[in-house]
Amino acid sequence: MERVDQLAHERRSAQFDVEAMKVVWAGSKRSLEISDRMARLVASDPVFRKDNRTTLSRKDLFNNTLRKAAHAWKRINELRLTEEEASKLRFYVDEPSYVDLHWGMFVPAIKGQGTEEQQKKWLPLAYKMQIIGCYAQTELGHGSNVQGLETTATFDPKSDEFVIHSPTLTSSKWWPGGLGKVSTHAVIYARLITDGRDYGVHGFIVQLRSLDDHSPLPGITVGDIGTKFGNGAYNSMDNGVLRFDHVRIPRDQMLMRVSQVTKDGKYLKSDVPRQLVYGTMVYVRQTIVADASNALSRAVCIAVRYSTVRRQFGAQDGGAELQVIDYKTQQSRLFPLLASAYAFRFVGEWLKWLYTDVTQRLQANDFSTLPEAHACTAGLKSLTTSVTADGIEECRKLCGGHGYLCSSGLPELFAVYVPSCTYEGDNVVLMLQVARFLVKTVSQLGSGKEPVGTTAYYQRVEHLMQCTCDVQRAEDWLKPSVVLEAFEARAIRMAIACAKNISMAQSPEEGFAALSADLVEAAVAHCQLIIVSKFIDKVQQDIEGQGVKEQLQILCYIYALSLLHKHLGDFLTTGCINPKQGALANDQLRSLYSQLRPNAVALVDAFNYTDHYLGSVLGRYDGNVYPTLYEAAWKEPLNDTVVPDGYHDYIRPVLQQKFRISRL
Amino acid sequence: MERVDQLAHERRSAQFDVEAMKVVWAGSKRSLEISDRMARLVASDPVFRKDNRTTLSRKDLFNNTLRKAAHAWKRINELRLTEEEASKLRFYVDEPSYVDLHWGMFVPAIKGQGTEEQQKKWLPLAYKMQIIGCYAQTELGHGSNVQGLETTATFDPKSDEFVIHSPTLTSSKWWPGGLGKVSTHAVIYARLITDGRDYGVHGFIVQLRSLDDHSPLPGITVGDIGTKFGNGAYNSMDNGVLRFDHVRIPRDQMLMRVSQVTKDGKYLKSDVPRQLVYGTMVYVRQTIVADASNALSRAVCIAVRYSTVRRQFGAQDGGAELQVIDYKTQQSRLFPLLASAYAFRFVGEWLKWLYTDVTQRLQANDFSTLPEAHACTAGLKSLTTSVTADGIEECRKLCGGHGYLCSSGLPELFAVYVPSCTYEGDNVVLMLQVARFLVKTVSQLGSGKEPVGTTAYYQRVEHLMQCTCDVQRAEDWLKPSVVLEAFEARAIRMAIACAKNISMAQSPEEGFAALSADLVEAAVAHCQLIIVSKFIDKVQQDIEGQGVKEQLQILCYIYALSLLHKHLGDFLTTGCINPKQGALANDQLRSLYSQLRPNAVALVDAFNYTDHYLGSVLGRYDGNVYPTLYEAAWKEPLNDTVVPDGYHDYIRPVLQQKFRISRL
Repeated sequence: MERVDQLAHERRSAQFDVEAMKVVWAGSKRSLEISDRMARLVASDPVFRKDNRTTLSRKDLFNNTLRKAAHAWKRINELRLTEEEASKLRFYVDEPSYVDLHWGMFVPAIKGQGTEEQQKKWLPLAYKMQIIGCYAQTELGHGSNVQGLETTATFDPKSDEFVIHSPTLTSSKWWPGGLGKVSTHAVIYARLITDGRDYGVHGFIVQLRSLDDHSPLPGITVGDIGTKFGNGAYNSMDNGVLRFDHVRIPRDQMLMRVSQVTKDGKYLKSDVPRQLVYGTMVYVRQTIVADASNALSRAVCIAVRYSTVRRQFGAQDGGAELQVIDYKTQQSRLFPLLASAYAFRFVGEWLKWLYTDVTQRLQANDFSTLPEAHACTAGLKSLTTSVTADGIEECRKLCGGHGYLCSSGLPELFAVYVPSCTYEGDNVVLMLQVARFLVKTVSQLGSGKEPVGTTAYYQRVEHLMQCTCDVQRAEDWLKPSVVLEAFEARAIRMAIACAKNISMAQSPEEGFAALSADLVEAAVAHCQLIIVSKFIDKVQQDIEGQGVKEQLQILCYIYALSLLHKHLGDFLTTGCINPKQGALANDQLRSLYSQLRPNAVALVDAFNYTDHYLGSVLGRYDGNVYPTLYEAAWKEPLNDTVVPDGYHDYIRPVLQQKFRISRL
Repeated sequence: MERVDQLAHERRSAQFDVEAMKVVWAGSKRSLEISDRMARLVASDPVFRKDNRTTLSRKDLFNNTLRKAAHAWKRINELRLTEEEASKLRFYVDEPSYVDLHWGMFVPAIKGQGTEEQQKKWLPLAYKMQIIGCYAQTELGHGSNVQGLETTATFDPKSDEFVIHSPTLTSSKWWPGGLGKVSTHAVIYARLITDGRDYGVHGFIVQLRSLDDHSPLPGITVGDIGTKFGNGAYNSMDNGVLRFDHVRIPRDQMLMRVSQVTKDGKYLKSDVPRQLVYGTMVYVRQTIVADASNALSRAVCIAVRYSTVRRQFGAQDGGAELQVIDYKTQQSRLFPLLASAYAFRFVGEWLKWLYTDVTQRLQANDFSTLPEAHACTAGLKSLTTSVTADGIEECRKLCGGHGYLCSSGLPELFAVYVPSCTYEGDNVVLMLQVARFLVKTVSQLGSGKEPVGTTAYYQRVEHLMQCTCDVQRAEDWLKPSVVLEAFEARAIRMAIACAKNISMAQSPEEGFAALSADLVEAAVAHCQLIIVSKFIDKVQQDIEGQGVKEQLQILCYIYALSLLHKHLGDFLTTGCINPKQGALANDQLRSLYSQLRPNAVALVDAFNYTDHYLGSVLGRYDGNVYPTLYEAAWKEPLNDTVVPDGYHDYIRPVLQQKFRISRL
């Protein structure tokens, strides 16, 4: 149905070139073109409809997901899509499925950990999906601590095989996506035991199901682990449980790039450096940061559009009520999230560069920047996913009551997103890794070992420990150097304070454990600095399009100053700024919100999301929220009948007092 | 199945009398006895099982809820339960249903707004559930701003009737629970129009459905508004949409306690003071604060127990890994929530007293404390529900990956709880009401009008504006007076700073609007002070039971000092404490966490929750988490067949490359 654009007025008031901003958001004109084409392809194909997701039973939902995955694969082949296009198409299908693990974990694991021979054997099968693979690492009793995994792979030199076994209940593989019902193969992690010795956790390729009839192979018990958070959400994925009862695999199915077991059971390290694994980690985390900006921008897009449609209070002389987005309380919650979505986008872009840089160095056997890159990506994964999870829920609350309806799209978005805070490294565990790296960096100050990359500001430790902020008016906060120095000083002072406190403990380990909550705060400060500095870098580049740069500047300052306001205690405690300067930052923030306001809708239009992808009645491009909500309600299965099924059995007896009641 | 108590060791290490703490938590021995008896009654009745909630379709879920409601009502009658017992029984059934609105909103609305005659007519019918009622206020386009409702009730003197009508799409009633499929009657709110004049929003009793066959009466369109957040959660409730097409009701179905319309269409105010309405509001909000402590304590109970079962990292010499609860990062997130659950319990208890006090004053025509009581309950509703919603999700994250499974109970608990942040007053709107009251209190300082109740500390404004904290060692933070003064000084200084900034604006209204984000922060500071001070009051009472008081003291200081740490920026900006004192508070906090640690499990045992009520595999009393998780997985419907239904249609064709592919 064609409807008037309720947001046309908002769009006309924008002070910048939205099409140019779309290019900035997408990264390039080419990327925008592909993204746009794939989004429309998915949106126009009825197989990919998703408006019924939240009312399907688990079985129907799962079956429908299998259908979509098969259809997507068919289309990808029919249209001879490139790898980039195919990946975008899958992205816009927007439903977790076994395919994510096959392409995102199984294939990369073989690429990263398999020998050339192994890659030659397995990758062509995987590329054609003649086998479907998953990645089975975590166990019922073991998540973050990979070294604590219990599954065993014992080498039997007699048969030249490994015997894979689950010795305890807690060693059951638990959580791997695609495992429960679909995968024919898995890369599994198990303790390698040979020659009577435990060599720790290694990867193995194991076939799970028959390629003839899909039944589990002998010795394998496998199933789905049950319903997860949310209506549709991750319930389209068959996260699985897997137990091995002495399952035998050929020796050459151990992934042998870094270490190997010989025919006679000898354990050998290859000359390929172990650090290569970290390169893959940098890659995976970079994609997670990019996903964070996607998820957050979707939620923000919905909340911004609906906040301009929704009116409440403030009607004068019988006129229309005020748009909710004009309330400062709404702006102070929503605009920092809009700024964060952009900030995460640009830091994600930079991480792509970092991955290329790391890869090139690894190829040249230069491992010098690896610890820093590793800490940096760990921290950014942790920070962006935590903020995004909380931010989606905040956007839902900003949509008031209607945000609680599944048709708003926000409950789904939240439920499907939150696992990001846990998988690929629990966010707290990751921040502690960052903290450990920072403490080490502090300890090496003055040792001649120069801090690199995102810790390069540690080189200016003497200045940063004693500098004072010279902001005197609110406008002074609009200088990149002022903002940057405040964030640098705060981060380094917090890290050094922690290091000092640790040094007073009985041992460094005890000190680190006792102070870990403070260490996490110091690590967060460091990661926020990285994002602020990459945003500032971005804004200082040449950017095409009328008004685009100005809007990005506003967003950049909103991002930085809203963080400063939120963590004011850090900045004051460390003496980086004084209370008066904190108040001025807050004044400046209010003024920035007012500058952003007329551009809010256009800034979310720049994400270029189709209504299909957004999947939200509240976030519709044309703003026709109320008629659509009203129509959507009648599709609810409970409305199939006017009088509910349970009336005769459970309502009428109550009203007519006609229970068989024993004692009344 | 009988299993060993995995947490026995934890329970033995407790340093206080758990049974005595149960009495403190329940409020009295009598209350504990009733609560315990009702909890067991529900847990032992198979009709009330809820472990299958998250796998049922919406229709089956709803039908099952109707069944439970009818069964509960039957049992309440059979056992001749008192009102208190019946209410506890409904509480432990733990599933939102029409019954909540019937007893919680429909009956109180008639009691509060109906004349004696109206009460005599309608209440007996409602008490026997011969009619089932709901409360229809919000509309598709109107939530917080009740005065903006569009539904009309036009008086027709010819027939002595009101004509109820929905003039626009946005005037459709939207959200009322129990409306969609069950209620026979509703208290609806509509603009009263008589004699050609609009007298604003008033309440009316309207019959919606036939008592013979449950079909909607002529002119009434009614249905369910669709799926909501979460798997089971609020989907057991028939939140509804309702439109009126010139529906006629007798004049005497206008609720006429406060104002009335005469036979000839004259609008009259009665001599009953309007303020009475606020008495009801205080009551409703007090129950919401009590609910917050229930919901938060459930989540904390699950997270504490699972954190003692779960082990990760830190294994030395091949021994067991460290219990997750021993990590300071875990403690610093979990223990403040445990403290908050207790804090909310005690402030909820105090609110019960406040309600009695307000009621007695109203009966004596003393309205002097009403504005303060109103602001205080608004603020406490807002603060406790926001903290609880976020706290439940934090507890879910603290349970790692397994917290994402529905069998953990936490996704359900979150999804069913979050609407509390929006209903009965959006939390931000409420905090702005508190802020408005505080600004007014500031403006009246020195006017001779003495601040009362929770704002009594404003009487000491001169002292609080200039006092300085004299903490010099970490232990100094363990003095109630020191903590209290810091919180009082922070709250009053923030409010006065806001008032000053407002006074510099062009008009007070403009200033209030521009500064509303800061005003919310000042209001939060005031509400946190209230909770801290009521917790301190509680701890200073006589409390029975060995070690009980000591534990409550630890919790009280954790509550206060963790807030101080979180909002350090406020305390430093306002000069209430200095950075050194902030650091000492943090040191003290770490020490308090260590003191709490051995008592953590016992402190959640004191909530006395049955495994049925908790509804969580991770929170089981006996700690047998892993075997139960493993067994629960196999009940998942997807595991009914080893090979999934979609295999032949959607998996096999992918593996065998057998699509009908047009161009390959």
